[in-house]
Amino acid sequence: MQKYISSIQNPLIKQLLLLQEKSRERKKSGLFVVEGEREISLAVKAGYEIVSLFYCKEIYSESVLMHLINQPIDRIEVPMELYKKIAYRESTEGIIAIVKAKTHSLNEIKFKTETPLILVAEAPEKPGNIGAILRTADAANLDAVFIANLKTDLYNPNVIRSSVGCLFTNQVATGSTSEIIAFLNENKISYYCAALQASKNYIEVNFNSAAAIVVGTESTGLSDAWLENATQNIIIPMEGEIDSMNVSVAAAIIIFEAKRQRNNK
Amino acid sequence: MQKYISSIQNPLIKQLLLLQEKSRERKKSGLFVVEGEREISLAVKAGYEIVSLFYCKEIYSESVLMHLINQPIDRIEVPMELYKKIAYRESTEGIIAIVKAKTHSLNEIKFKTETPLILVAEAPEKPGNIGAILRTADAANLDAVFIANLKTDLYNPNVIRSSVGCLFTNQVATGSTSEIIAFLNENKISYYCAALQASKNYIEVNFNSAAAIVVGTESTGLSDAWLENATQNIIIPMEGEIDSMNVSVAAAIIIFEAKRQRNNK
Repeated sequence: MQKYISSIQNPLIKQLLLLQEKSRERKKSGLFVVEGEREISLAVKAGYEIVSLFYCKEIYSESVLMHLINQPIDRIEVPMELYKKIAYRESTEGIIAIVKAKTHSLNEIKFKTETPLILVAEAPEKPGNIGAILRTADAANLDAVFIANLKTDLYNPNVIRSSVGCLFTNQVATGSTSEIIAFLNENKISYYCAALQASKNYIEVNFNSAAAIVVGTESTGLSDAWLENATQNIIIPMEGEIDSMNVSVAAAIIIFEAKRQRNNK
Repeated sequence: MQKYISSIQNPLIKQLLLLQEKSRERKKSGLFVVEGEREISLAVKAGYEIVSLFYCKEIYSESVLMHLINQPIDRIEVPMELYKKIAYRESTEGIIAIVKAKTHSLNEIKFKTETPLILVAEAPEKPGNIGAILRTADAANLDAVFIANLKTDLYNPNVIRSSVGCLFTNQVATGSTSEIIAFLNENKISYYCAALQASKNYIEVNFNSAAAIVVGTESTGLSDAWLENATQNIIIPMEGEIDSMNVSVAAAIIIFEAKRQRNNK
């Protein structure tokens, strides 16, 4: 269906804005918002269902639109003036979608390999950190990313934006710390927990069998449940004056050491 | 000297706000602003000269203040209401300093080791990326960080903030790409340039002698001058759908591979 909407008071526009702003609204409706051609393409490729598509003819060509989405959906044309009010990246993209959420439960994960490499992030503080982690996970082609005790929701616009669409290219599951620990135990996946007080250098660990790398928050690290049950707690030795590292940077260093070992095998 | 200022119209307060907002003002005056106890301590420790110190008694204790700065400086007490207007982190720190800039020229760099390990970042796009790079450089205890063709200024408040004070714990120099290349050549430091189109995997490079790791922008990578003169162009193989990595993450992966090799030696 093709519509033209020019008023910010229109109920559909109001819904779009609410979905961008309120986690509660996203949870209640099971819908979320994706902006930009690349991000929407990746969502479609990952099997997400597009519900409505808002586009601005002055920026985004209608013919490209037809190629982007091969689903019967509501297409809503909005004038430039309104587009600027509903878009984050003002006038650079010209296209915004309302998309149906998925469940992200642990039991839906299908590993790509016999010896999966997984990243677990416990309670990441900022949406931007989740995005950065997902970007690294995509580059490393990890089997899955698990988020334990998620504080925001995965469909927070800042997660999608900072992941540059990698929310859709990774297998992502959420759960409580105890659920994820149980899952790893059941699947015989070793887990290596990054901790400032650990004594084992991460470069001394053999990551060649099924392994999960587990990182906590920058301020308080991992919870005891992780540290007490870990196959091994590991440390990235820091030699500077500030004993702190960005969580996505720490994750990347350990992930790529695991990749290095696996490539050398 | 001890003062009490409560008006946002006061010339010193106006200067403080200008220094936070305008790169031009910082360059003209040779002054910049540092907020927070840890950040100011690290600046003092690194030999920076504090010019004025603004503090809010309701948040920051005067007795701690005396310990923090052992220099004859202007101490300006401000009431909570004004502090909130001049501070970025509203009411968490209670202390802000105006600090004298340093020069950051290449010829002032003193290497800590015989075989220095250096990071070079060309034209980083965002202050936050410079901060993240400096944080990693601190953790790895690099000999120096060079910023080529800097687009902002090093004392941009977002650089200081995102570096969590690591701007002051690292030796940082700025210069044009050609100046930095000349410096590396003169000092017989090999330079390894990260490039998406390089064929050499970064894990195949021997980083044990004096080495600089060079990273470019996320959008366009390194300029030709780097790629054509490099000792070796290197790639972090990416296996995902998005051929892109955060610049500070890429830098960290290569730096810590170099550290791993040097520790194993």
